[in-house]
Amino acid sequence: MTLNWNRLQDRMEHLRANKLFETFVIAVIIASALLIGAKTYEESSRFDHWIYWLDMGVTLFFLFELLVRMAAEKRFVDFFKQGWNIFDFVIVVASLIPVNESDTVLIARLLRVFRVLRLVSLIPELRVLLGALVKSIPRMGYVALLMFIIFYIYAAIGSFMFNTVDPVLWGNISIAMLTLFRVATFEDWTDVMYDTMEVYPYSWVFYLTFIFLTAFVFLNMMIGIVLDVMQKESEAAQRESGEGEAAEVHWMREQMALMSEQLNRIEHQLARERERDRVE
Amino acid sequence: MTLNWNRLQDRMEHLRANKLFETFVIAVIIASALLIGAKTYEESSRFDHWIYWLDMGVTLFFLFELLVRMAAEKRFVDFFKQGWNIFDFVIVVASLIPVNESDTVLIARLLRVFRVLRLVSLIPELRVLLGALVKSIPRMGYVALLMFIIFYIYAAIGSFMFNTVDPVLWGNISIAMLTLFRVATFEDWTDVMYDTMEVYPYSWVFYLTFIFLTAFVFLNMMIGIVLDVMQKESEAAQRESGEGEAAEVHWMREQMALMSEQLNRIEHQLARERERDRVE
Amino acid sequence: MTLNWNRLQDRMEHLRANKLFETFVIAVIIASALLIGAKTYEESSRFDHWIYWLDMGVTLFFLFELLVRMAAEKRFVDFFKQGWNIFDFVIVVASLIPVNESDTVLIARLLRVFRVLRLVSLIPELRVLLGALVKSIPRMGYVALLMFIIFYIYAAIGSFMFNTVDPVLWGNISIAMLTLFRVATFEDWTDVMYDTMEVYPYSWVFYLTFIFLTAFVFLNMMIGIVLDVMQKESEAAQRESGEGEAAEVHWMREQMALMSEQLNRIEHQLARERERDRVE
Amino acid sequence: MTLNWNRLQDRMEHLRANKLFETFVIAVIIASALLIGAKTYEESSRFDHWIYWLDMGVTLFFLFELLVRMAAEKRFVDFFKQGWNIFDFVIVVASLIPVNESDTVLIARLLRVFRVLRLVSLIPELRVLLGALVKSIPRMGYVALLMFIIFYIYAAIGSFMFNTVDPVLWGNISIAMLTLFRVATFEDWTDVMYDTMEVYPYSWVFYLTFIFLTAFVFLNMMIGIVLDVMQKESEAAQRESGEGEAAEVHWMREQMALMSEQLNRIEHQLARERERDRVE
Repeated sequence: MTLNWNRLQDRMEHLRANKLFETFVIAVIIASALLIGAKTYEESSRFDHWIYWLDMGVTLFFLFELLVRMAAEKRFVDFFKQGWNIFDFVIVVASLIPVNESDTVLIARLLRVFRVLRLVSLIPELRVLLGALVKSIPRMGYVALLMFIIFYIYAAIGSFMFNTVDPVLWGNISIAMLTLFRVATFEDWTDVMYDTMEVYPYSWVFYLTFIFLTAFVFLNMMIGIVLDVMQKESEAAQRESGEGEAAEVHWMREQMALMSEQLNRIEHQLARERERDRVE
Repeated sequence: MTLNWNRLQDRMEHLRANKLFETFVIAVIIASALLIGAKTYEESSRFDHWIYWLDMGVTLFFLFELLVRMAAEKRFVDFFKQGWNIFDFVIVVASLIPVNESDTVLIARLLRVFRVLRLVSLIPELRVLLGALVKSIPRMGYVALLMFIIFYIYAAIGSFMFNTVDPVLWGNISIAMLTLFRVATFEDWTDVMYDTMEVYPYSWVFYLTFIFLTAFVFLNMMIGIVLDVMQKESEAAQRESGEGEAAEVHWMREQMALMSEQLNRIEHQLARERERDRVE
Repeated sequence: MTLNWNRLQDRMEHLRANKLFETFVIAVIIASALLIGAKTYEESSRFDHWIYWLDMGVTLFFLFELLVRMAAEKRFVDFFKQGWNIFDFVIVVASLIPVNESDTVLIARLLRVFRVLRLVSLIPELRVLLGALVKSIPRMGYVALLMFIIFYIYAAIGSFMFNTVDPVLWGNISIAMLTLFRVATFEDWTDVMYDTMEVYPYSWVFYLTFIFLTAFVFLNMMIGIVLDVMQKESEAAQRESGEGEAAEVHWMREQMALMSEQLNRIEHQLARERERDRVE
Repeated sequence: MTLNWNRLQDRMEHLRANKLFETFVIAVIIASALLIGAKTYEESSRFDHWIYWLDMGVTLFFLFELLVRMAAEKRFVDFFKQGWNIFDFVIVVASLIPVNESDTVLIARLLRVFRVLRLVSLIPELRVLLGALVKSIPRMGYVALLMFIIFYIYAAIGSFMFNTVDPVLWGNISIAMLTLFRVATFEDWTDVMYDTMEVYPYSWVFYLTFIFLTAFVFLNMMIGIVLDVMQKESEAAQRESGEGEAAEVHWMREQMALMSEQLNRIEHQLARERERDRVE
């Protein structure tokens, strides 16, 4: 029994590592993505039957692929130790739940959309890319907080002052924040400004200081952090590949340590000779 | 008497340094910020009574916290030597002034909004961030002046030429500058241009040169300064942490100075030996 | 016969390398570009006869120039080994096909437009620039894929949810992707949002997360890659010209290798002396 | 006579170098700028008399200042060797020409506007800044040419294809280029696109490829060049101030050359000793 299981497991591992199998999985994911896209076309209702069976096929294949990867693991618990595996598991299991009522159809559809994300979990380059992006998020934490404080203060001032002028744009603090985000993206911001300038002729001060502050903090943040991350990565890559300025500096540092030791030996040697000469 | 005061002061200092107390202060600031936000909702009028007492409580707590920090100071004058303390003092004292007339209610409300800024004065990371932003402002001084000169010249030309075409947009030099700022943010700038092109068919030259000039100076300025500041900071951080290229270069520089001295000693030694040999 | 051909080929090569001939070719290309521009003016119909003959002249000259370059090649096949030559060949040959029917006139015109691109193939600086741009494209491949996945998922969600609200903007997945691209360029995106917020009041979450995600990935990508390419080029240029920090580091590296050898020799020498002293 | 002239010249030079005089000149320039601004207000007609005399005063003072600077020059011709002096001369002399007819009033006014630019010629920091900006222009030459070719080709295609759809936007190649610039700034570009998509449903390909191409080339250009210039400047500044990584590398390079010479001397010395030992 155990022997059979082991042999099956070995086969599963071979299957998982098979390049052809991997390519097929990617093809199925892309097919499922196209299927989702096809459903959004009205003309697709004619092919409803086909789409249903294709969808079923994709769902079953995903279940099969998940079981293969689970079985390929030496210890069952190890499977859930990787974040991407948990992600795949949730996506696949959730799409197994049968939906009949019209209410949950939308949810079922949305869930199927997220299957496209499995492309990211499957292609290593995308996984690395996403990892780098995620790594740069925490560094933005405090800048995002500062940005939020600026938005909050301006939104509070705006909803206190312009509330009576245009309740649609400045009705309460959350609506005001949305309006300010609109101003920050320069989207018809002059319409918003001309609106309030009829009542408060000097309200352009409010908008201009906001735009300058936001643009300034945002640019400072974005460029700064991106630059920082990229510079470090590029330097690390140079050192690894042994090319470029950083690599040369690194080589020189090690070489210099060797030379320093050698000089010590030479000086020591000369000192000993002098000692000996003196004794003679 | 003095003894009692000293004991009280010690207690105050302990209280100020207490992590729990600090967290509580931050919680109260956030609560006061939420209070300000809540007031902007119309439905909030039902809870006016509650909001009034909560606001009173926040005001008194802020006064208490300010007194604690003042008392914790060894010498009373030292408290006012830090910019952030003066900022806190003004915010807290200003919100103590009673307001009854409907006219000053708005001012009182706005003043309470600025309490949110106390978050910046309290969280060290935000203080550092703001400090870095403020530090990069003076370097922008001359570029801002250059930008202003460009705006001023174009606004003068615009209000001389297009004054009769559209007085709402080009009525006088300050309105024209606001219109130009709108053009610089690409906000419905073609509407402004098509407007004047009906009378002056070649006025697109005015707008295009302005856009190119502004975008060029702005990009040059922003990216340049941000890059410069970030590069220096990143380099300083590397040197401090002892990692990265800059740190290695620094280590090499010091090592090289040592090696140079050593070589001097060796050469001197050899020279002396030769001298002695010659004497012999 | 062969001798004659060789003499002709030599002459062709001289002609091709002639600075004056090159300048004349550039002048003809610019003239053909102006011709294309002139045709777009309605008033140009009066000069149709002139334009026709000028166009014919340009076409024949291009053919002549192509034949010169072909003949100048030692071996005929070598001509087609360079991408730019194939490009020129296709452009020239395609514009030789006679067009009579009104249907193909547009195609013939468009083909003539691409003659302007011959400027790029002729001016070496533009060729280098385009080469650098093309070189930075493959590195964007995976980021573009990630971007496409984000767009696809949001478009699928959008066309499932907002299909009934506004079929013009969210009718099917391709229309939805176009709408999302519009949102990503901040072009009247609030109109799109206010539209759906009437039915789904919380749909601003959809737009804001999309904007943040897109802007974040886009900035990360663009700045990162551009920086990376530029940094490497600038470093390589410095090393080549022998100026700047990178060049000094490179010089130091080589110098250090020499010094290290020298130290080896000195130590070896001292060791031998000691050996001899001991023997004595 | 010559003595008197020399004494006058000395005085002029003293005056020119006087800090107070310089500040006064700047004050007058700012006053003249404010005067220009004031004239754009309709209410200013009441003060026409005052403004006229003030303007006359500024004009005369500028003439006086120019004569002082000319007289301060050792040789008269040297004055015209500096670009900024010629600029000042043209501005001042041009505003001396009397204008009576209503036609030339506008020109006279515009000329007075350019007086504000004298601020740039007077403040050294602005002069340096402008110099740096101007220096980065030629490097953009070929990229600007590439950009122009892209615009020209798309404008030609656009005016051939969409001419009949909307002659206001695509009437001829120059109008089409203006429309494309509008699309490139994302200003209501979807309106332009939806317009042509009614006739050519696939015309979104035209707009999207144009946006991608333009944005890509533009970003590549701007960031690349700005970065390059800034990096070099920052490096040069570091080396000059003797601080930072580049300065340390430079110091190391010189130190290494000295050490290398010293090693040569030591090796030579040892070799000579060995020679002598052998002779003995």
